[in-house]
Amino acid sequence: MSNDLTQDALAYHAEPVPGKISVELTTSAETPQDLALAYSPGVAEPCRAIAAEKDAAYLYTGKGNLVAVISNGTAVLGLGNLGPLASKPVMEGKALLFKRFAGINSIDIEVATEDAQEFIETVQRIAGTFGGINLEDIKAPECFEIESALVELCDIPIFHDDQHGTAIVTAAGLLNALEIQGKRLQEAVITCLGAGAAAIACMRLLVSMGARRENIYMLDRRGVIYNGREGVNAYKQEFANHTDKRSLSDAIAGADVFIGLSGANLLSTDMLNSMAEKPVVFACSNPDPEIKPELALATRDDLIIATGRSDYPNQVNNVLGFPFIFRGALDVRASCINEAMKVAAVRALCDLAKEPVTAEVLDVCGLSSLEFGPDYIIPKPMDSRLLTRLAPAVARAAIASGVAGIALPEDYAPVV
Amino acid sequence: MSNDLTQDALAYHAEPVPGKISVELTTSAETPQDLALAYSPGVAEPCRAIAAEKDAAYLYTGKGNLVAVISNGTAVLGLGNLGPLASKPVMEGKALLFKRFAGINSIDIEVATEDAQEFIETVQRIAGTFGGINLEDIKAPECFEIESALVELCDIPIFHDDQHGTAIVTAAGLLNALEIQGKRLQEAVITCLGAGAAAIACMRLLVSMGARRENIYMLDRRGVIYNGREGVNAYKQEFANHTDKRSLSDAIAGADVFIGLSGANLLSTDMLNSMAEKPVVFACSNPDPEIKPELALATRDDLIIATGRSDYPNQVNNVLGFPFIFRGALDVRASCINEAMKVAAVRALCDLAKEPVTAEVLDVCGLSSLEFGPDYIIPKPMDSRLLTRLAPAVARAAIASGVAGIALPEDYAPVV
Repeated sequence: MSNDLTQDALAYHAEPVPGKISVELTTSAETPQDLALAYSPGVAEPCRAIAAEKDAAYLYTGKGNLVAVISNGTAVLGLGNLGPLASKPVMEGKALLFKRFAGINSIDIEVATEDAQEFIETVQRIAGTFGGINLEDIKAPECFEIESALVELCDIPIFHDDQHGTAIVTAAGLLNALEIQGKRLQEAVITCLGAGAAAIACMRLLVSMGARRENIYMLDRRGVIYNGREGVNAYKQEFANHTDKRSLSDAIAGADVFIGLSGANLLSTDMLNSMAEKPVVFACSNPDPEIKPELALATRDDLIIATGRSDYPNQVNNVLGFPFIFRGALDVRASCINEAMKVAAVRALCDLAKEPVTAEVLDVCGLSSLEFGPDYIIPKPMDSRLLTRLAPAVARAAIASGVAGIALPEDYAPVV
Repeated sequence: MSNDLTQDALAYHAEPVPGKISVELTTSAETPQDLALAYSPGVAEPCRAIAAEKDAAYLYTGKGNLVAVISNGTAVLGLGNLGPLASKPVMEGKALLFKRFAGINSIDIEVATEDAQEFIETVQRIAGTFGGINLEDIKAPECFEIESALVELCDIPIFHDDQHGTAIVTAAGLLNALEIQGKRLQEAVITCLGAGAAAIACMRLLVSMGARRENIYMLDRRGVIYNGREGVNAYKQEFANHTDKRSLSDAIAGADVFIGLSGANLLSTDMLNSMAEKPVVFACSNPDPEIKPELALATRDDLIIATGRSDYPNQVNNVLGFPFIFRGALDVRASCINEAMKVAAVRALCDLAKEPVTAEVLDVCGLSSLEFGPDYIIPKPMDSRLLTRLAPAVARAAIASGVAGIALPEDYAPVV
């Protein structure tokens, strides 16, 4: 990062007040009469109503529109284990994005433990405060155990965005890219460089949407995860392939798809040239991708490339998913965010990218035109239709799959 | 509560959105450039700064102006153990008061456990998220163990308002009432009806300010707590008196002060008549006091009476304390709220009541005049000077007692 960006980022966080979010009143609290309703004696009434019927909490408290962003800071961005306190700017940033994009009140909670069981206990005990919980920046493999335990223990949506948010947005972009390239997910050979939380969740979602497990080659720092390799944890083992491929060069030769969730510049031009015709490359390492788009496109002109960066086309950005997925889940009081809801989000993203781009989006992006194709496989974060397309799709999927607590109003139209 | 008030209170909590607080942005998050500062990649900079020096969290995150209101719902108002979820309106109400009176961002956390050790562990693990923690509506005696453990374990202020907030405001009112009656705390004989969290904290604070322990008679449901009585917990035992008084009638005969933190109408006119001349009666049971002020004043005209109610003079209301005490503590990054800070708050409240009342206060209260005396022993909640008197007094006491993390700016002037 340049010195200017460093200074700008620090100044942005320091002014006008430290941090990025505040708590404000949604009611009048000016007169003694107001205070007699907001607090004693009036507040006893909603307390009694909730004690009698717990769903009254959705009528009389902020629970139903409140998401906690919870981390222990063990895997902060690409920075590693910075601990809970130093992860706070990221968690506050996530809370800001929830509000900005989906009107969801969100606060961060940093949990000071690296022990999975302690983390689970802690979150379970405070979970009732919230309508949903977004887990963030927790290192693998603990994140898998933590998420699955909390999903079991809690009756509200628990969503580890580094896993599922990344998977949903990646899957949407990939499906559209494959369509443009004239390929089908069911036959695609996929090389996944990276075997952390995001990589495993991406591959799981692609399999659930039709990809064949035997067509997937997943690699960690030690190379291809193959059947019989020693020291492979249970999560990676799920993608162990019966293969004699061992290196990235072995695995990528002939592949249709490269998904990079690893590190800068790990994909060479030779490797790129060894891929099948019309390949799809998702070079999502941040801030520096596995291969620079200009280099990739100079090497082959038949590919589609996406990255995690906003300064290239096809940005795979989690903000395309989590605000709207939670919006839809909260609006029908879903008890979880299940596979059907995730798939609905993927489909809604795919469909939106095929619609004509609005003038608003062109304006924000400084473009004169943008059409579905190799340079536009996925919507832009500033597309305000994300809210009105994804949230209802997710809400309807929750209802159809039997995890919604209430019906969706006929005139449902989510707004920020 | 009348049906009208019931309906008003429910409507107040339901509209315009459920609950009373929201989370809002303090920074611009409109353009892609904004988002690049608020989140990836810019957010990495404050993360790195905090990882290098933890106090940078006060510069780049909201920690320094964020107080969690935490409860397990085991002693909600006068309603008893309603559980965590049904306590949420009270906790959100407290958060509202923090913001309204002292500009402090505050969120509620409900913890689903009645086990003291589990509660302590949970709060300890999330404490670093906040600049301070207000414990609320936790039943005695667990509240004592919980608070003292958390004070030991955490490096931020932990304050159980039901104890100390009540004690501070009560002590301030009592000191002024005794002054008006021409009595001294050091010689006052005090009958305390109630032996819960608030009662014990009140008596502790009065003793630390000069009251003599042997002049205090504390009563629980079984009567006077005397030395040798069986089945008395350690906290009540602190106030066990060498006495042969057993009933409230025994204990109140000749007393200078009655402090009621118990139940409606427990103080009879006979008992009132048996008190010393020029007595002080704090009938703080809510919503119905131990004796109605009109009955008390019709029985004796030499007394000063205070209640918890806003519709009588001399309201003992915790909102006179906690917002400003936390404001002062946060503004010097105090590591705790110690006895010196509590006493400073008491003194500042006493002093403010002796100053001329402002036109603003008279207007809100619908009064033409108000002067220090039997009907005005303590400031009104709507007095905006509470912030500018209490917060600096508490902050200076923190500095003087060596628990402040930073100095107070010379031009310090807290605003909401």
